[in-house]
Amino acid sequence: MARGHRHPAGGPRRVSFEARTKGDLPVASPETASEHVGDDATMLVSGFGSVGYPKLVPETLAESGRDLSLAVVSGGSVGEEIDVALVEADAMARRYPFQARDAIREAINAGEVAFADRHISTLGDDVQFGGMVDPDIAVVEAVSVGEDWLVPSTSLGLTPAFIESADELIVEVNTAQPRALEQFHDVYRPEIPPNREPIPLSHPGERIGDARIQFDPAKLSAVVETDRRDVPYEFRDPTETDLEIAANLGAFMEREVDRSPLYEESVRLQFGVGSLGNALMRAIGDADLGDRDLIYYGEVIQDGLLDLLDDGKLEAASATSLALSAEGQTRLFESADRYAEDVLLRPGDVSNRASLIDRFGVVAINSAVGVDLYGHVNSTNVNGSRLISGIGGSGDFTRNAPLSIIALPSTAAGGEVSRIVPMVPHVDHTEHDLDVVVTEHGVADLRGLSPRERARELRECAAPSFRSALDEYLDRATAAGGHVPHDLETVFDWTDGE
Amino acid sequence: MARGHRHPAGGPRRVSFEARTKGDLPVASPETASEHVGDDATMLVSGFGSVGYPKLVPETLAESGRDLSLAVVSGGSVGEEIDVALVEADAMARRYPFQARDAIREAINAGEVAFADRHISTLGDDVQFGGMVDPDIAVVEAVSVGEDWLVPSTSLGLTPAFIESADELIVEVNTAQPRALEQFHDVYRPEIPPNREPIPLSHPGERIGDARIQFDPAKLSAVVETDRRDVPYEFRDPTETDLEIAANLGAFMEREVDRSPLYEESVRLQFGVGSLGNALMRAIGDADLGDRDLIYYGEVIQDGLLDLLDDGKLEAASATSLALSAEGQTRLFESADRYAEDVLLRPGDVSNRASLIDRFGVVAINSAVGVDLYGHVNSTNVNGSRLISGIGGSGDFTRNAPLSIIALPSTAAGGEVSRIVPMVPHVDHTEHDLDVVVTEHGVADLRGLSPRERARELRECAAPSFRSALDEYLDRATAAGGHVPHDLETVFDWTDGE
Repeated sequence: MARGHRHPAGGPRRVSFEARTKGDLPVASPETASEHVGDDATMLVSGFGSVGYPKLVPETLAESGRDLSLAVVSGGSVGEEIDVALVEADAMARRYPFQARDAIREAINAGEVAFADRHISTLGDDVQFGGMVDPDIAVVEAVSVGEDWLVPSTSLGLTPAFIESADELIVEVNTAQPRALEQFHDVYRPEIPPNREPIPLSHPGERIGDARIQFDPAKLSAVVETDRRDVPYEFRDPTETDLEIAANLGAFMEREVDRSPLYEESVRLQFGVGSLGNALMRAIGDADLGDRDLIYYGEVIQDGLLDLLDDGKLEAASATSLALSAEGQTRLFESADRYAEDVLLRPGDVSNRASLIDRFGVVAINSAVGVDLYGHVNSTNVNGSRLISGIGGSGDFTRNAPLSIIALPSTAAGGEVSRIVPMVPHVDHTEHDLDVVVTEHGVADLRGLSPRERARELRECAAPSFRSALDEYLDRATAAGGHVPHDLETVFDWTDGE
Repeated sequence: MARGHRHPAGGPRRVSFEARTKGDLPVASPETASEHVGDDATMLVSGFGSVGYPKLVPETLAESGRDLSLAVVSGGSVGEEIDVALVEADAMARRYPFQARDAIREAINAGEVAFADRHISTLGDDVQFGGMVDPDIAVVEAVSVGEDWLVPSTSLGLTPAFIESADELIVEVNTAQPRALEQFHDVYRPEIPPNREPIPLSHPGERIGDARIQFDPAKLSAVVETDRRDVPYEFRDPTETDLEIAANLGAFMEREVDRSPLYEESVRLQFGVGSLGNALMRAIGDADLGDRDLIYYGEVIQDGLLDLLDDGKLEAASATSLALSAEGQTRLFESADRYAEDVLLRPGDVSNRASLIDRFGVVAINSAVGVDLYGHVNSTNVNGSRLISGIGGSGDFTRNAPLSIIALPSTAAGGEVSRIVPMVPHVDHTEHDLDVVVTEHGVADLRGLSPRERARELRECAAPSFRSALDEYLDRATAAGGHVPHDLETVFDWTDGE
């Protein structure tokens, strides 16, 4: 492979805009393109895991001085050109369904941006026919485009559904994104109910589509050139606590794969995004799971998965976004041919789909803000009120996996706050779904347990300094009786202290 | 059709035990059969919607004087021979995942019976390989049995999964159940992940199996004769409030079917069980939905569905149980040939399956104990502690339907208690799933709304006498800020008053 003009993070030779655009296209400046976005448009943007989102058109809109009141919908998290610049320009009125930047988080919590937090798996349906929005225009990043097709860049997300739903389409062709990305995409569009056929995927690593998203050429309003790069992920080194959680998880999984007939040949896994998720992947790679193949069926490809692939421990990795560090990007793009044999990106309504998580028997491993004594999980919210990011795909996986694990440190705020509480002040996943909780202090296997029994297991996973207070709460609540013993007068005394 | 010895509730001629049992079977008395149930056995029983459950073996166990500590698992609700007699005999230590009798409810709330509340759709998996229980014996009611097959009676529930999971099998052949029931069953067993194929069902009314559950003949320990009848449902007449809720729902659905491309040809519906659900079915039948076919894809066949079938408004009805009144049973059984063309019973892990609810685009209409201002739903619990029945299938449908509606009266306890509250003290369905709330005071269409906006809509659906108090709470909470404004110190002051 040629190694001429190197990508700043390494990787293959830069391919020109001209070589990435085929046919008679409405090439435009960002300024001209952004005029297609109405003042109060519903704008659907590509992007997931903070990569693969459009950069120039949102930034141009933010700098336009226009009196904008946009509704912005993305598949997952995007970058600061959208969730900082548009917010600071007071140009965003609504935002769905996930965000991960301080500027927009503050605006949502102040009630200045109307936000609704929905599952990834059904967001395409919500947008296309669910009555959530009336889509006007899709603005998406691509590595190449023709008159009726494009190839997405570092994430796929809900881009196919967005393009199908919107009246108009603007494409940002990013010459900083390696064209080798087209090797990773597997585009499939679910049909509209009631004639929605099963998704014909019989293995997490199977390909059922190709790299191109097809569209009605009449929709294409503008094609914009950019070379603005995604900002790579920065993973912190795992903490001592992370490693203890990972060790407990690994030991549990060693027992579980021997117990259950689901794992005779392979273990299909999903991990939440972030440094803890990355550490947990490594722990599973180090666990003694016999000669079972590991397969990743989740949302994002993180660096930990590349390690498992390189070590020959991972058979395939299916996701919807490449949430890699700079070093991970270099590794992936420099050996794209090799990695593309085992790594693929699917639309978010395939990667996260209930039916596929069920059919493949995925083990879901996600983190959380807190868990209560009876097995309800808070993934999104502090003090019952303040939104952090959103539920993302954690509900899709926690609900539909035959084994749903929440792995989290027992405390937050340097040990000042217990994450195991009497009642979570915001419930994202219910007692009806959770199977196992892992902290640095142990594993609570909640399967088949009554709420009172779950409380005793979960209490053991709390930090020792909080156990007596949890016991006092349980004694007080249990004295009042009930299937799920609670003392509503004092249940949030803990949370108030956060 | 012969009309000799009439069934007490009308219906076809009684068929003898001998004519219902084929081959060399271990026919036994209930006493002998019940000896196969170990003292601390995990006993899986047929039954759903309080019909089709085994009666003599549980009753015999309850009366045996043995020191029993059973774990009892059913697909749905069963009758008093299980959930009263075994509880009063102190013979039941554990119970999953649904119940609807005072005796067991009291025992669960007192902490005397350990109960866990799980979804119907995944209960078969929970039992078979999910680590929830270690199944010993299945005890099921049938209308006929052979050496390696049986035909279930008035419900199918999770019986196929239970029989496959258990080491031993006892069959109660009920000669009071018309053999015509075999026309309604469509038995299909999902495979075990990761090689679980999509369920090959392309229409809610399609048949993909037959009436027989096949089993390993070595499992069959005893066949018992009984003629103990199911107790028919008693529906109360709809109240004025029920009719107002129904009218609001009907008007909403008239608008929605015109808005959405999902309903161009047909409307697929699920309703919760009970008198309100029955009234809502009639309202949908009376609504002006153009010439669209109605199709029921839910859990139970109630009398309202037979009315819609007789009126030619319903194309097909798929469920897992026949929860009919005595009059409804007579109607169904006297014209079984005709009804069986359009009515069928599926296993609970087919009737409630996420993938099928999604593929058919089912509109889910369920009731609840309460809804909070931000769209979280409590379906199971009073005061955060006291279990009522269980989540049943309400989560399966509310989560996976493209349109999820909760229809409930705005108050309980004769108007003394608001069902629209600041925060539900137990969450069964989260804000991430709910689309629409209907009360007698209006319709709150929550789609695309932020929590603050949802609160304003839901406040309008509350009883007028509670609206100012809700406003006061909202003002106080909103002053403190946050995406989901709450004042945790006073949030349960309302609930405490219940």
